[in-house]
Amino acid sequence: MDLQETCVESAVVYDGCLLHVNRDTVRLPDGSLSVRECIKHPGAVAVLALQDNGNLIMERQYRYGPQREFFEIPAGKIDHGEEILVTGQRELLEETGFVASVWIHLTTTYPCIGYSDERIEYFLARGLTKQQRNLDDGEFLEVFELSLEEAIEWVRCGRINDSKTIIGLFWLEKYLKDWRV
Amino acid sequence: MDLQETCVESAVVYDGCLLHVNRDTVRLPDGSLSVRECIKHPGAVAVLALQDNGNLIMERQYRYGPQREFFEIPAGKIDHGEEILVTGQRELLEETGFVASVWIHLTTTYPCIGYSDERIEYFLARGLTKQQRNLDDGEFLEVFELSLEEAIEWVRCGRINDSKTIIGLFWLEKYLKDWRV
Repeated sequence: MDLQETCVESAVVYDGCLLHVNRDTVRLPDGSLSVRECIKHPGAVAVLALQDNGNLIMERQYRYGPQREFFEIPAGKIDHGEEILVTGQRELLEETGFVASVWIHLTTTYPCIGYSDERIEYFLARGLTKQQRNLDDGEFLEVFELSLEEAIEWVRCGRINDSKTIIGLFWLEKYLKDWRV
Repeated sequence: MDLQETCVESAVVYDGCLLHVNRDTVRLPDGSLSVRECIKHPGAVAVLALQDNGNLIMERQYRYGPQREFFEIPAGKIDHGEEILVTGQRELLEETGFVASVWIHLTTTYPCIGYSDERIEYFLARGLTKQQRNLDDGEFLEVFELSLEEAIEWVRCGRINDSKTIIGLFWLEKYLKDWRV
């Protein structure tokens, strides 16, 4: 069965600092018309920064949408025209002060397919050395270290419940042995 | 360090059929003011419907935001005032035609903390029997069965890349043995 929905008319209904919302009229598979609203997003990169001692570089950050703090892996939006590897390197340095000598692309996921075109590119970063972090204006976060085992336990008990972080941690636990790095 | 951001002023900047967007002025931890834009979302429920033969009930659905098809577990939004168990039962029946005699809550995740307050509640559904599905207007999707082993392989190779589905599958693979159901 062909499930595709084709755009008949597209309108930008909100064009903000962070969020850009489209309201499109679409033709459905049965020929009828409907409305689809969605966020246009440039995509993001998330980084599993794993030290030689087995600890991951983690962040504690307040998130205004859900109105609470989260424990997260470093991540950030892709700047216009930026290579995803460069985004990963830039965000890791800006947010945590770490640089990595080895970067391995793990996977691509879609966090919010119901109303956003965002994709998240995951990297494993190894060979970490500490430099100076340089947060964006208006960005406040605390950096800490956590073993993969402890992080997985935090997922199980619900202390880590950010989706991008859960996927990254499960992926690392499941497939790390395959890479021999 | 206190990382909380407090709302100074809140405005609804887009109030659509599906999407509701707020643009708030907030006070940051250093006392300065900034703007936060976020989606107000009622939350969703996702269902891992596992048959006695080991097959999961899966869906193939076109998603207009990312402009492509995805393989997904059944899921849907919480209606106003609805219990999450009722949402899970309703969505599973509407989308796939299955009812389940055993429902186990697995976990709660936040799919999109950068710009949405959405949370996803996960249930495992067992004791499945087939009835008649009843899709919402404008909803088109195909139902199929897939073994957990095959689904995990589809995640590894990128054929399944919807975040809510990845988390559900990894969770089931990792913890199913703990429940003895």
